[in-house]
Amino acid sequence: MNARFITLDGIDGAGKSTHLAAMRQWFAQRNLPVLFTREPGGTPVGEALRALLLNPATQANLRTETLLMFAARQQHLDDIIRPALAAGTHVVSDRFTDATFAYQGGGRGLPLADIAALEQWVQQGLQPDLTLLLDIPLAVSLQRIESHRSKDRFEQENADFFNRTRAAYLQRAAAAPARYAVIDSNQDKAIVSAEIDAALQRLFEPRP
Amino acid sequence: MNARFITLDGIDGAGKSTHLAAMRQWFAQRNLPVLFTREPGGTPVGEALRALLLNPATQANLRTETLLMFAARQQHLDDIIRPALAAGTHVVSDRFTDATFAYQGGGRGLPLADIAALEQWVQQGLQPDLTLLLDIPLAVSLQRIESHRSKDRFEQENADFFNRTRAAYLQRAAAAPARYAVIDSNQDKAIVSAEIDAALQRLFEPRP
Repeated sequence: MNARFITLDGIDGAGKSTHLAAMRQWFAQRNLPVLFTREPGGTPVGEALRALLLNPATQANLRTETLLMFAARQQHLDDIIRPALAAGTHVVSDRFTDATFAYQGGGRGLPLADIAALEQWVQQGLQPDLTLLLDIPLAVSLQRIESHRSKDRFEQENADFFNRTRAAYLQRAAAAPARYAVIDSNQDKAIVSAEIDAALQRLFEPRP
Repeated sequence: MNARFITLDGIDGAGKSTHLAAMRQWFAQRNLPVLFTREPGGTPVGEALRALLLNPATQANLRTETLLMFAARQQHLDDIIRPALAAGTHVVSDRFTDATFAYQGGGRGLPLADIAALEQWVQQGLQPDLTLLLDIPLAVSLQRIESHRSKDRFEQENADFFNRTRAAYLQRAAAAPARYAVIDSNQDKAIVSAEIDAALQRLFEPRP
């Protein structure tokens, strides 16, 4: 079986962290070799760029920020994701290029064609086999962020920003429905988890 | 008069620093408003990326490194170069995109088409009005580096690397001769300086 590349995405507060734990169990129960990773991927260059982007003193412009996102992604792909896939290990990444389309594109207004050009430059055709998109309404997202975590730079944006970001995610999914599983994350956790499991099951046991 | 964008480039040891000082005098004597800058441009993000790239612990891959170079260039253009030109100030940059074609392309082997794609993404058609390319033979370059400065990561490469880098610079100039002044920097300093002055004179007083 070819190793599968799976990404988990969605706006802040959509429940990614909660469901990543359940996904680990799914792979463990089936004894499938899997690597869980997250952008920027734990590479030295990726961690340095993460610190740079989260530092308000840096003041990277939108186009600069987008180049830095893709630089971290390039290193993550080269050093972590592609080697794992080549070795037969499935890969689950917490966030990937969809987040750039959603945040820098939908949220901040960078033309999607500009993002697509860098996507092609960096990924050279590699795409996830499955992207699990956890979708929630804005009100739920904001409530979860308020109650659970401190806000960082990306979370201090306004409601319009979140609405545009969510819409960009959903548009990406609508444009390539075979690759995406859009999951309503404003349901009971067990139901969300069951829907994720079902999407994984379909990926690993495609019907004839 | 439209503000002019001038870049100075060439392999390490070609004499850029020496001749930048003379170029400052050239502008001062004519009372022309000018901004001297150098990549990565003194922006906070540029300086952070410079430190990152010069740190051997970072281990950025070639494609990652190239994205980071262009990220610094994007910020340099947005925050320093374009505002100065828009305000009618001439700009002289110590190094620019030719260096990426020479070092990451010629030297390290990244396909030139990949560099050209990022050049277009970042510069969106903006090109220097004049690029002064200081050209010296490899032996002179190595001798100057040995005697004058400590080597950094980029200077610890071998002779083949320098030859490929120099060749890439010369190929860039040959492909767009109207934009380049290739100056033999293995001559007496006064002669090199006079040739630079002549190229500036041609740029600012075009013949009918």
